[in-house]
Amino acid sequence: MLYIIGLGLCDEKDITVRGLEAVKSSSRVYLEAYTSILLVNKERLETFYGKEIVVADRDMVETQAEEILHEADKQDVSLLVVGDPFGATTHIDIVLRARSSGIPVRVIHNASIMNAVGACGLQLYNFGQTVSLVFFTDTWKPDSFYDRVRENMGLGLHTLVLLDIKVKEQSEENLARGRKIYEPPRYMSISQAVSQILEIESLRAENVLSPKTTLAIALSRVGCDAGTGDTQQRIVCGTLEQLSEQPPESFGEPLHSLVIVGKRLHHLEVVYAEEYAVCRETWRRVAAEVYGCALD
Amino acid sequence: MLYIIGLGLCDEKDITVRGLEAVKSSSRVYLEAYTSILLVNKERLETFYGKEIVVADRDMVETQAEEILHEADKQDVSLLVVGDPFGATTHIDIVLRARSSGIPVRVIHNASIMNAVGACGLQLYNFGQTVSLVFFTDTWKPDSFYDRVRENMGLGLHTLVLLDIKVKEQSEENLARGRKIYEPPRYMSISQAVSQILEIESLRAENVLSPKTTLAIALSRVGCDAGTGDTQQRIVCGTLEQLSEQPPESFGEPLHSLVIVGKRLHHLEVVYAEEYAVCRETWRRVAAEVYGCALD
Repeated sequence: MLYIIGLGLCDEKDITVRGLEAVKSSSRVYLEAYTSILLVNKERLETFYGKEIVVADRDMVETQAEEILHEADKQDVSLLVVGDPFGATTHIDIVLRARSSGIPVRVIHNASIMNAVGACGLQLYNFGQTVSLVFFTDTWKPDSFYDRVRENMGLGLHTLVLLDIKVKEQSEENLARGRKIYEPPRYMSISQAVSQILEIESLRAENVLSPKTTLAIALSRVGCDAGTGDTQQRIVCGTLEQLSEQPPESFGEPLHSLVIVGKRLHHLEVVYAEEYAVCRETWRRVAAEVYGCALD
Repeated sequence: MLYIIGLGLCDEKDITVRGLEAVKSSSRVYLEAYTSILLVNKERLETFYGKEIVVADRDMVETQAEEILHEADKQDVSLLVVGDPFGATTHIDIVLRARSSGIPVRVIHNASIMNAVGACGLQLYNFGQTVSLVFFTDTWKPDSFYDRVRENMGLGLHTLVLLDIKVKEQSEENLARGRKIYEPPRYMSISQAVSQILEIESLRAENVLSPKTTLAIALSRVGCDAGTGDTQQRIVCGTLEQLSEQPPESFGEPLHSLVIVGKRLHHLEVVYAEEYAVCRETWRRVAAEVYGCALD
């Protein structure tokens, strides 16, 4: 049996009881380390699960699927995935390979940012399509996310924006020399995300977003209520301009996500999120005047 | 501390390790039984958790929040919620009450249908807003879902349709006589859902959906891979017409959900779901000819 097991959002205790049983029954355990990061290291997972874990980067899950699937028809093998196995990245490819080798597959679900984003208080019903925002370079500023946000905003829907992560990047020099030396991981900050979004708004100038009258909610480490201090979940909301002006530390540690708030905003949601506002007065004023929420 | 704990999708083992610890630390445990159903009974949960559980229907969570929150500033109280606490229903109201009484709240996330729907193989990125479909009566056929589906389809996005559940319904006679006798729970079947959807399509006639050329995916008991036979997850896909013609038992046991497939369909997704097709040939033909997927 190949188990594909969602680890949830935060640390080793976010696995489900069913998932933990599957890990313990497995003769080999792989951790997919590409699409997201778990907030604990491999050793802590190994101690908790009582199992050795092989870190499998995306290349491996895609190109060395044979190794992962080896003898999985005779013994249990677990592939651990941060969040849910069908979160931002589906694992269609490895499931199809397993199927064609007659290996049974069982998926063990968990929370992912795609549903835990509800922690900001906005109804999940009113989210449109999710978008990804990649690091811009001087010469490469992909702006297709802007069309998706426009589509959502046109319907009054909220947009979950997933911010880029760079792991296993090589410097140009190391790449040129074929040296497999990797740069430290980089995580897009909320300020950078907002600045990229507003840059495209001013280039495209389609009035989809406005620094002063578009509300947004920044989330960091969703689901990590259990930690203390900087490792805790943090939610900060305000206008895009306000968010762009906050010092980086006000958003907590990565991973970050951003929600661009659409017009289908309920007054109770405004009250709920007010606790997280950079400035309560501005939050309420924009919600009332621009979003049309009836606040007392 | 008030813990609001997602139980996940299927049975007592879908709680996370963190959630289980919180339940065990709590002096009182409530199970919210309204918005969804867990597929195991209260006694099985009580045995597994080693705790007595009070079933709280929606009325209670809304009107007797005081009881749930009683002394939660001094001791741990858990409110268990099927799926994720911020799934289809947010729990904003009880969190706001807790806040105003100075009671700390911790949310423990889990899978919900809003992310586990990815099990059908479609990218979550390409889902639009989620809709609910309620039981029609002779005189009440709310059709606002149709506008939401049209909006999604216009953008090529998939729509997750959540099917109505009726629990604690009273017959007209019992209601009139004030007798608190409730009918057995009812769960909307896939056939009924498709029939209601097509009824509104023929009334509104806006050509959003077509019996023969709109693809859909029916899901039952998502995440319940662990059971056997009828308790297992089941996925069935085809045109709306094909789904409407299947016998009820082909869709497995409730709860059911339905995905209406939008045009942003990738050929790998077609191949993945083909395994679940009522008729592979039709599935592939419509995907190729109507959805424009390049299949070999």
